[in-house]
Amino acid sequence: SVLTNLEELYPADIATVLYELNAEKSKYVLDLLDPEVSSEILSGLDADTRNNFLKNFTSEEIARYVNLMESDDAVDVLNEQNVQVREEVISLLDNEEKAADIIDLLHYEEDSAGGLMAKELIKVNINWRVGQCIEEIRRQAENVEQVYGVYVVDDKNKLLGRLGLKALILANDSTPIRQLYDPDVISIETYKKDTEVVDIMQKYDLDSIPVVNAQGKLLGSITIDDVLDVMQEQAETTMQLITGVTENIEEDDSIFRLSRARLPWLLIAMLGGLVGARLIKVFEAEISLVPAMAMFTPLITATGGNVGIQSSSLIIQTLANNSIILDNLMQRLLKVILVALINAVIISGLVLSFNILFKEDLRLSFVVSTALFSVVLLSSVMGTVTPMVLDKFGINPAIAAGPFITTANDLLGLAVYFFVAHLLLL
Amino acid sequence: SVLTNLEELYPADIATVLYELNAEKSKYVLDLLDPEVSSEILSGLDADTRNNFLKNFTSEEIARYVNLMESDDAVDVLNEQNVQVREEVISLLDNEEKAADIIDLLHYEEDSAGGLMAKELIKVNINWRVGQCIEEIRRQAENVEQVYGVYVVDDKNKLLGRLGLKALILANDSTPIRQLYDPDVISIETYKKDTEVVDIMQKYDLDSIPVVNAQGKLLGSITIDDVLDVMQEQAETTMQLITGVTENIEEDDSIFRLSRARLPWLLIAMLGGLVGARLIKVFEAEISLVPAMAMFTPLITATGGNVGIQSSSLIIQTLANNSIILDNLMQRLLKVILVALINAVIISGLVLSFNILFKEDLRLSFVVSTALFSVVLLSSVMGTVTPMVLDKFGINPAIAAGPFITTANDLLGLAVYFFVAHLLLL
Ligand SMILES: [Mg+2]
Ligand SMILES: [Mg+2]
Ligand SMILES: [Mg+2]
Ligand SMILES: [Mg+2]
Ligand SMILES: [Mg+2]
Ligand SMILES: [Mg+2]
Ligand SMILES: [Mg+2]
Ligand SMILES: [Mg+2]
Ligand SMILES: [Mg+2]
Ligand SMILES: [Mg+2]
Ligand SMILES: [Mg+2]
Ligand SMILES: [Mg+2]
Ligand SMILES: [Mg+2]
Repeated sequence: SVLTNLEELYPADIATVLYELNAEKSKYVLDLLDPEVSSEILSGLDADTRNNFLKNFTSEEIARYVNLMESDDAVDVLNEQNVQVREEVISLLDNEEKAADIIDLLHYEEDSAGGLMAKELIKVNINWRVGQCIEEIRRQAENVEQVYGVYVVDDKNKLLGRLGLKALILANDSTPIRQLYDPDVISIETYKKDTEVVDIMQKYDLDSIPVVNAQGKLLGSITIDDVLDVMQEQAETTMQLITGVTENIEEDDSIFRLSRARLPWLLIAMLGGLVGARLIKVFEAEISLVPAMAMFTPLITATGGNVGIQSSSLIIQTLANNSIILDNLMQRLLKVILVALINAVIISGLVLSFNILFKEDLRLSFVVSTALFSVVLLSSVMGTVTPMVLDKFGINPAIAAGPFITTANDLLGLAVYFFVAHLLLL
Repeated sequence: SVLTNLEELYPADIATVLYELNAEKSKYVLDLLDPEVSSEILSGLDADTRNNFLKNFTSEEIARYVNLMESDDAVDVLNEQNVQVREEVISLLDNEEKAADIIDLLHYEEDSAGGLMAKELIKVNINWRVGQCIEEIRRQAENVEQVYGVYVVDDKNKLLGRLGLKALILANDSTPIRQLYDPDVISIETYKKDTEVVDIMQKYDLDSIPVVNAQGKLLGSITIDDVLDVMQEQAETTMQLITGVTENIEEDDSIFRLSRARLPWLLIAMLGGLVGARLIKVFEAEISLVPAMAMFTPLITATGGNVGIQSSSLIIQTLANNSIILDNLMQRLLKVILVALINAVIISGLVLSFNILFKEDLRLSFVVSTALFSVVLLSSVMGTVTPMVLDKFGINPAIAAGPFITTANDLLGLAVYFFVAHLLLL
């Protein structure tokens, strides 16, 4: 009766229930359900949870579910298994066409258009008429979860265009496809990055996009639901890089895993702090001359950190929105410096007034504001250039707003502060 | 001939070109293009750019384009205008049905399902047959950009289900809709938040969702392309809150605007730094006793900041993924404390060993490690609780990983450090 209740739910809702169960109980439920439903549930799980569940499944059992999945989801599941299980499962697939599709799809990088595409799609020949086309849809539709449109190809499987379902419904059975189809179809090559898939589908408001090889042959298609998942993953990755969590963790992970995901960044910050301590020690002479100097180190480091993160975030956003190589670097840097200049003048001016008001040592007050001014400028430039350089080397630029760079920024701030003190006080 | 070249581009590509032009030149291009194309371009622009362009348009000109837009986009454009222009434009719309739709849509909050929906959709009566239905699609399809499916309603416009285009293509003209439609349709009420729209469409892999009122009457539908825009906006807002930029700015905004967007957070950090300076001054006695104390303030504040941001990011992610009210708060906090305990022991232990190795003052070494230990624990709890409290009060919890809280964290760290020093040194 629990089962009867479950079967009335959508697979995505059953998945929500499974998240609350352990791997054994989940397997028990999945075994009881209609295999079609179970395989859809497994397709929709996040990689972590799915891996955790599938540990209790034999290769035969995995193969039974993979057989029923769309090829893109099947490939995701297989990519998460170790090589032995993967080979076993593939050899156990009894749907030969699906096995061939999967083997083909396994060749593509996971974060490429090829790694996102599914083989299931509906295509028709340019020389057919609407009637034939509807016959073909009838034949192929069984394998396709959601039909977004029909791709039009020539005899050599070269993608020629697209046929909207609206056009198809409204057309006459005898109308030639050639007269009806839209040759203006946006497609993407297999090797393109998944981020580019997201950008293109968002820019042109597409619900699916055909994937082609270098010769323009139609190999598969990517649907919008999978692109949504890519977008969410990207947002989470960016967040993790900025907030300093190394692994893809969630609150419900084990205490050990949660600690481990956070420790590396804390160690980096710790090392930074210890280096900072050494650095301050070098300037003991300056501090003993004006002991009040120590009061302002948090102000200096915090300002540098905030300015750096702000600057980085702007560039990260630009890089995320248009993957164009940034041209006129100099003009861009000039602008960054002008913006920094305005804020540097305001901040250091305010702090100077404040310090004079509170009757701080006048020389110290000038040191603090000069240091602040320099730190705002330097952190702006650093915060702008770092993400660009990272991106150039193929590293995710969001790292630049994370703990590694903020630690570097703290040290930069301290160095500038004490260097200025050294110049002005001694 | 520039125009001929432009007309061969997709509207989204022309938009990219317009971004490079100033408002006058853009108007010139938009006036030259086919009004259908221009209105689609205007629909796709971001609010900022659109506003900038439309400043040069008369209400008549705006009305001409709004007439050609889908109702959801029309409402976005009108919401961006001041009341006077808005009223003028509405009174100038010559398509009466569209004007009525727009006036209706203007009632909904912009960040609600009602604010996202478009009135354009295809609906059929449950009592019809497929033939009638196709007639109706033919009639309605003209207004609908992309047909995702057909909604089935009763005589009173109550939503009963959905009819996939696949089913419709494969069915016979004489088949009753009643036999063909899927009564399991997921819908959403007008007042639901846009974040919930995103969650539901992502969870159930929907490409469109019907929007209903409290009586279950069909009022409109939301399509996936608009949901993608909401997702991107959300990701950008989160990023801006975390990195401390107050306005929705981009790199190409004016220097003045860029400075202004960053200044408030810098001022908060500045105030924090000045308060920190006062705080340190209070403990002058401790510092003059052990001047080397000053060496370790950057270590303490940086560690507190990093731990706090890490903790917040986990909760922010949980809150973003499932909007469920967090239950068993105590168990959750216990886990946070255990994770913090592990990292606190490691970090403070390492720093203690390091300080002993470098022959720092032994008492100071104990002060530093005790303070670090306490700061890691406190910042974890603060970083966990703050986003939850903010969320409870309807404030975006991502603020908790931003400059305001990191500034508070710096002060917390300093206070703990000097308080421990006071206890152990005096
Ligand atoms: Mg799917
Ligand atoms: Mg994949
Ligand atoms: Mg879009
Ligand atoms: Mg898929
Ligand atoms: Mg998927
Ligand atoms: Mg996990
Ligand atoms: Mg649109
Ligand atoms: Mg809207
Ligand atoms: Mg999904
Ligand atoms: Mg729309
Ligand atoms: Mg829109
Ligand atoms: Mg802007
Ligand atoms: Mg900091």
